[in-house]
Amino acid sequence: MVVQFSNIGGNLNADGANIALAMLIVFGTAKVSAEICERVGQPGIVGEILAGVLIGPGVLGWVQPNQVLSALAELGVMFLLFRVGTEVKSSELMKVGGTATSVAVIGVVVPFFLGWGIMWLWREPRIESIFVGAAMVATSVGITAQVLAAKGLLQRRASKVILAAAVIDDVLGLIVLAVVSGLARGRVNVVELALTAAAAVGFVLVVAKWGTTTMDHVVHGVQRRLRAGEVQFNVAMVVLFGLAVLAMYAGVAAIIGAFLAGMALADSLEPKVRELTHGVCELLVPFFLVGIGLHVDPKVFAQGSTLLLAGIILVAAILAKLVGCGIGAARLGWSDAVRVGLGMAPRGEVGMVVAQIGLGLGVISSSIYAVVVFMAVLTTVFAPPAMAVAFRRPRDVQSVEEYSLR
Amino acid sequence: MVVQFSNIGGNLNADGANIALAMLIVFGTAKVSAEICERVGQPGIVGEILAGVLIGPGVLGWVQPNQVLSALAELGVMFLLFRVGTEVKSSELMKVGGTATSVAVIGVVVPFFLGWGIMWLWREPRIESIFVGAAMVATSVGITAQVLAAKGLLQRRASKVILAAAVIDDVLGLIVLAVVSGLARGRVNVVELALTAAAAVGFVLVVAKWGTTTMDHVVHGVQRRLRAGEVQFNVAMVVLFGLAVLAMYAGVAAIIGAFLAGMALADSLEPKVRELTHGVCELLVPFFLVGIGLHVDPKVFAQGSTLLLAGIILVAAILAKLVGCGIGAARLGWSDAVRVGLGMAPRGEVGMVVAQIGLGLGVISSSIYAVVVFMAVLTTVFAPPAMAVAFRRPRDVQSVEEYSLR
Repeated sequence: MVVQFSNIGGNLNADGANIALAMLIVFGTAKVSAEICERVGQPGIVGEILAGVLIGPGVLGWVQPNQVLSALAELGVMFLLFRVGTEVKSSELMKVGGTATSVAVIGVVVPFFLGWGIMWLWREPRIESIFVGAAMVATSVGITAQVLAAKGLLQRRASKVILAAAVIDDVLGLIVLAVVSGLARGRVNVVELALTAAAAVGFVLVVAKWGTTTMDHVVHGVQRRLRAGEVQFNVAMVVLFGLAVLAMYAGVAAIIGAFLAGMALADSLEPKVRELTHGVCELLVPFFLVGIGLHVDPKVFAQGSTLLLAGIILVAAILAKLVGCGIGAARLGWSDAVRVGLGMAPRGEVGMVVAQIGLGLGVISSSIYAVVVFMAVLTTVFAPPAMAVAFRRPRDVQSVEEYSLR
Repeated sequence: MVVQFSNIGGNLNADGANIALAMLIVFGTAKVSAEICERVGQPGIVGEILAGVLIGPGVLGWVQPNQVLSALAELGVMFLLFRVGTEVKSSELMKVGGTATSVAVIGVVVPFFLGWGIMWLWREPRIESIFVGAAMVATSVGITAQVLAAKGLLQRRASKVILAAAVIDDVLGLIVLAVVSGLARGRVNVVELALTAAAAVGFVLVVAKWGTTTMDHVVHGVQRRLRAGEVQFNVAMVVLFGLAVLAMYAGVAAIIGAFLAGMALADSLEPKVRELTHGVCELLVPFFLVGIGLHVDPKVFAQGSTLLLAGIILVAAILAKLVGCGIGAARLGWSDAVRVGLGMAPRGEVGMVVAQIGLGLGVISSSIYAVVVFMAVLTTVFAPPAMAVAFRRPRDVQSVEEYSLR
């Protein structure tokens, strides 16, 4: 009879209980773990990712990745990039455009060929090697954005270069993935490829260039005419989700659209709207961080040679971005070049998605998939403490205004 | 080849695109519809529910109810009740406890027997009739809370009686549902029933009585000792989800736990934390409202007799709460009695859950299920405009302090 009555309660509140319990476990462990990391001198963000490893299927198994958690994670990183966008002016990113382009291009070429080369030396099949190279290209700007925002570093020159380069990197990553997927299917259509690239580049440039002016008109027009509730907040949400959807149709990541939406709205929104979106970030960003950790299963590395390869790929992935992006940013001086290189190092969910596509096409094995996921997560865990050290040095701090890039 | 490349984009952003598109459609149509309703003099909340009917499977079919949307809806109503809780002192609710108890008790008895009686006259089976009566008992305080919060009416005496009565009503509803489900299974264990009731009552009383003092110590202690991020916000979230989970184990709804959490934290949180949770409300409450509308399928009423029964049940459901709760609140004068009766009228998701349990036990038919859902949604759509009228009259406005209830 106990079961009978508790079942009633269970049925009555089924959705509510499940979601409340999931929220409690994910949010609670993330914050406890962040607190522990802060106390031992590590960034809290590392603690939140490790909380995901701990409660995930690999260790304790309290939480399984599911649709609801990945939706919350995706919303979390979209709001994070939106918020970072509202703190950056597109004109300032345009100013560092030349440096950002060389950071992005060299930062794509070096990891791609290094990853391919290592896998070739390891005597893996050609197409599998190329896919690992492609997965090493991806940059996940979410983690870096969170570190920069949390530490109040978004106005630093290196931060602006990182953000601009991450947008360009996403477009380049799209092209690399299109080529590599074409190779896997045995055909690459150059015309199609050019159209894909043009759509992505066009979308980014149009929104970056005219978004701010357009949004200024839209927000003020709407503010005058509409009556219902928090008008500015509602407009901001529609622009955020709208540009995220458009970004996807243009072939780039939804979070790039969210970032551009934030940037376009930066000058028009009143401070209250920032506080409101900040609340959503505080609630949902832990789901993004924990979500990354959930995908790590330490057990796949029981085989020694896989672990060795994973270690080599991890070190190569970090060095490739550090050197590649660093060369791209060399004209900023070596301190900022290192900061940019470290900021571009996390592969996060973008790297995992590339590996999933390879798995889906049947061209990479499950052990190589595990190697790529290991690389994606560990580059992500590595970056925050490394950036904390790199951004600590007070010398060479210059704003974009003080320093002419051309 | 077009398909090939757009598939790559689709795969790359699958989660992001789906969630961003779903957010855009649900949030966007909700706010457009709210604006239209405000312009024709109706509360925006009605527009948001109707937006759900419009985009749901019954009419346009743009959005199907799914796990992610119901999780967002559930979170939305939890944050809404949390926020309402932070604007109410538990000592003030205790003061209106006597009136609230009679509102809740008479407001449970009248609808239960009226619903049962109508179904008996309609010659429906006994157990099915009893289930309809049970579904008419349920009060969904979410809608009323949103109306009161949006119009700044939470400090009115009638509002406090409604909130206190809704909490008691939820406990009584649990007991009614336990008895009715027991009857459907052919056995009612009185000892078990008493334990269930005691757990629910005990949980509510303990949190209402000692929650504020405890949270005062917790928040200040934690504020002094912890370092990571928005400490107060993080504590508030853990208390919110923690009490929602505990509420479920005690047998009451997760939102009652969320409301008690807000009330317990009301005195300890700094204003910034309110703004942050307010942002989450603004984003997620539309999902709660649209979610109610999604469940309406006008097509089930093609059969005339079902529609007639639905109409009768709907009118009875409104009158039963208006009269029953009104009698319970009679000592406040008839204006406040009407306000309380209307505020208790929405059945919302709680009524639907009772019907779902009946459907699951195989004791109610799908056409009676449709009748109950119709009643649950329409009482919810009816209440906001009716409350707007009832709360408009400026006379009889007295605060709890000015008016002794005993």
